[in-house]
Amino acid sequence: MSTLGLIEYKDATPEVRAVYDDIMATRKTDWINNFWKAIAHDPATLKRTWEDVKQVMAPGALDPLTKEMIYLAVSVSNQCDYCIASHTAGARGKGMTDDQLKELLAVVGFANSNNRLAAGLRVEVDEQFQPRP
Amino acid sequence: MSTLGLIEYKDATPEVRAVYDDIMATRKTDWINNFWKAIAHDPATLKRTWEDVKQVMAPGALDPLTKEMIYLAVSVSNQCDYCIASHTAGARGKGMTDDQLKELLAVVGFANSNNRLAAGLRVEVDEQFQPRP
Amino acid sequence: MSTLGLIEYKDATPEVRAVYDDIMATRKTDWINNFWKAIAHDPATLKRTWEDVKQVMAPGALDPLTKEMIYLAVSVSNQCDYCIASHTAGARGKGMTDDQLKELLAVVGFANSNNRLAAGLRVEVDEQFQPRP
Amino acid sequence: MSTLGLIEYKDATPEVRAVYDDIMATRKTDWINNFWKAIAHDPATLKRTWEDVKQVMAPGALDPLTKEMIYLAVSVSNQCDYCIASHTAGARGKGMTDDQLKELLAVVGFANSNNRLAAGLRVEVDEQFQPRP
Amino acid sequence: MSTLGLIEYKDATPEVRAVYDDIMATRKTDWINNFWKAIAHDPATLKRTWEDVKQVMAPGALDPLTKEMIYLAVSVSNQCDYCIASHTAGARGKGMTDDQLKELLAVVGFANSNNRLAAGLRVEVDEQFQPRP
Amino acid sequence: MSTLGLIEYKDATPEVRAVYDDIMATRKTDWINNFWKAIAHDPATLKRTWEDVKQVMAPGALDPLTKEMIYLAVSVSNQCDYCIASHTAGARGKGMTDDQLKELLAVVGFANSNNRLAAGLRVEVDEQFQPRP
Repeated sequence: MSTLGLIEYKDATPEVRAVYDDIMATRKTDWINNFWKAIAHDPATLKRTWEDVKQVMAPGALDPLTKEMIYLAVSVSNQCDYCIASHTAGARGKGMTDDQLKELLAVVGFANSNNRLAAGLRVEVDEQFQPRP
Repeated sequence: MSTLGLIEYKDATPEVRAVYDDIMATRKTDWINNFWKAIAHDPATLKRTWEDVKQVMAPGALDPLTKEMIYLAVSVSNQCDYCIASHTAGARGKGMTDDQLKELLAVVGFANSNNRLAAGLRVEVDEQFQPRP
Repeated sequence: MSTLGLIEYKDATPEVRAVYDDIMATRKTDWINNFWKAIAHDPATLKRTWEDVKQVMAPGALDPLTKEMIYLAVSVSNQCDYCIASHTAGARGKGMTDDQLKELLAVVGFANSNNRLAAGLRVEVDEQFQPRP
Repeated sequence: MSTLGLIEYKDATPEVRAVYDDIMATRKTDWINNFWKAIAHDPATLKRTWEDVKQVMAPGALDPLTKEMIYLAVSVSNQCDYCIASHTAGARGKGMTDDQLKELLAVVGFANSNNRLAAGLRVEVDEQFQPRP
Repeated sequence: MSTLGLIEYKDATPEVRAVYDDIMATRKTDWINNFWKAIAHDPATLKRTWEDVKQVMAPGALDPLTKEMIYLAVSVSNQCDYCIASHTAGARGKGMTDDQLKELLAVVGFANSNNRLAAGLRVEVDEQFQPRP
Repeated sequence: MSTLGLIEYKDATPEVRAVYDDIMATRKTDWINNFWKAIAHDPATLKRTWEDVKQVMAPGALDPLTKEMIYLAVSVSNQCDYCIASHTAGARGKGMTDDQLKELLAVVGFANSNNRLAAGLRVEVDEQFQPRP
């Protein structure tokens, strides 16, 4: 279910199928999750988003699991249920253990709490934390 | 500056000084940043928050740098300026490079964007992502 | 379903019925959606909210469809599921096409991403963007 | 400073002055804070917002101080700096002590943390908490 | 249902049971709601969160009902469905009436609206609201 | 000012200059605002973000002013000060009048309020608003 419906592989245009094929090949899997089937109604967004995944989530200065956990932490903080479900699975697929998930959630909760203490008391940024001119 | 003012070491009660001392000893530094001086007006919150730092941010299934980056990612997503400034410094102190910071920010931006695509299209959670009963 | 229950027309007080009648007359429809039935437990809020709809969402310097799309964009950004569902329908009723919806969502995602890049890097506001004194 | 500038009493139209006069009379004060001077460029919003203050924040089932503290708690949670500054002052004007402020902030932080634990673990709502049909 | 499953009393370790027992004794009830059963997979977080409830939500400068309503207001503002459901029940258990709930929601909505007006117009904080140095 | 500093044209690599040149040519202006100078430390993000601007904000089913106003509405709702300042200027450059800005802000405030009423009362989505299977 999705506002615009879900585009299944068999009903997809060649342009959309090409992205689906690349997703499945990259992920070494034989199915496509609903997020992609929902945004496939807008092939430009589908293509751009998938290209961005490959650039943004690729190994670099940070490894893919760390990136996936940062992505999950943001989704938890934003309380996006679909994203929490899909990226918990994604992070586990990249090796996240239950213990790592629990610690991640504890950090997300703790940061959310302290963000409000700092803002609520209108704490001024220390000179030591200011960027050099 | 802070709504209730900042409690400097020389003006602090022994109870508050004990926490300050522990912060400086743990961090191997000789100063206290404004966040702690601001919440020190509420010694119970000061003590609880510092104890939580030591529990939540300690090495465990996740290493301290990863935890610090998750904390920073949440603060960026929430747009808490004080927290961004202090935890960028904190993560650098634990070894975060500029390249890691840039990739962290790219992931945070990307997650925030996709969170809205998923919610905006009301995408149903795939059965494969549902927890087992 | 709603915390306080839903007040149906037949069970409503004359005061609530008057608002329901005005909603149906204004929208040229014969039903009331759950939002109104839920807040009808608080007739002052019901009346104030409906009067606000008529003032805030009315044609003015912006046309009603643009206003409805701005409302929807905010609801998507906030990830309010009820509001996304009802205002997607509302915007369509005012003429929003599927292509417009897709572009709206792409802009909402993009803004959410860039908001975090700007905040995360603590970018100073350019002098050119400051209001004149 | 404000995007559209601030409208001072001496430069205000009679319509705007009438609202300013009512604000000062109601609050038993002789000045107007910037929020009102900024939204005064839109007299309809000025008038509606002020009428709403008088309805929403008035004594009712909740007393004015409790309402002011709920307003402040939301502003802290949203990290709206102007609103935190003005409603901390507002709540103090209605009798909020420093100890009450500290406890309020502790609750706001705690709720923000637990909101993420509940969402992050996708905890199902207990049957006992569901509204009766 | 929850990502990691729910730990029932009969399956809990003695450490977890001790917290469950304390929750039921403190609340004078014979059941545990899902939130606790979900975080019980991480006994350290379970214990810390429950200890925090007892410290943060206890009677102090603010009474328990006011604290519960502030908690609920934040959860509504954050749109955390589980938290709204559980803390609406919690606040009612402490005496919140339907009229109080309606007024609470009106204040939460109003604050959320005004937070955006203030931020959107970039209203400068009045000197009168600045903390003394 | 920015965490990583701002890269001026004269100090930029050819790769970064090419993007700066395209920004100035596209916008028919001779300066670059700080956002771009701040993210230029990460040329991949700079290039990707600018390409996205050209795709996402281009005329399509929605005209550029409507897109800019949706972008601004999201930034106001998220309370991103830099983004509000820069996109208020951007929208004005595309023709937004003060009256349109005021109505935009009124809609953003109103949506933020109603989002909380709907979530706070846990209003069920009407069958009429559900997507067809």
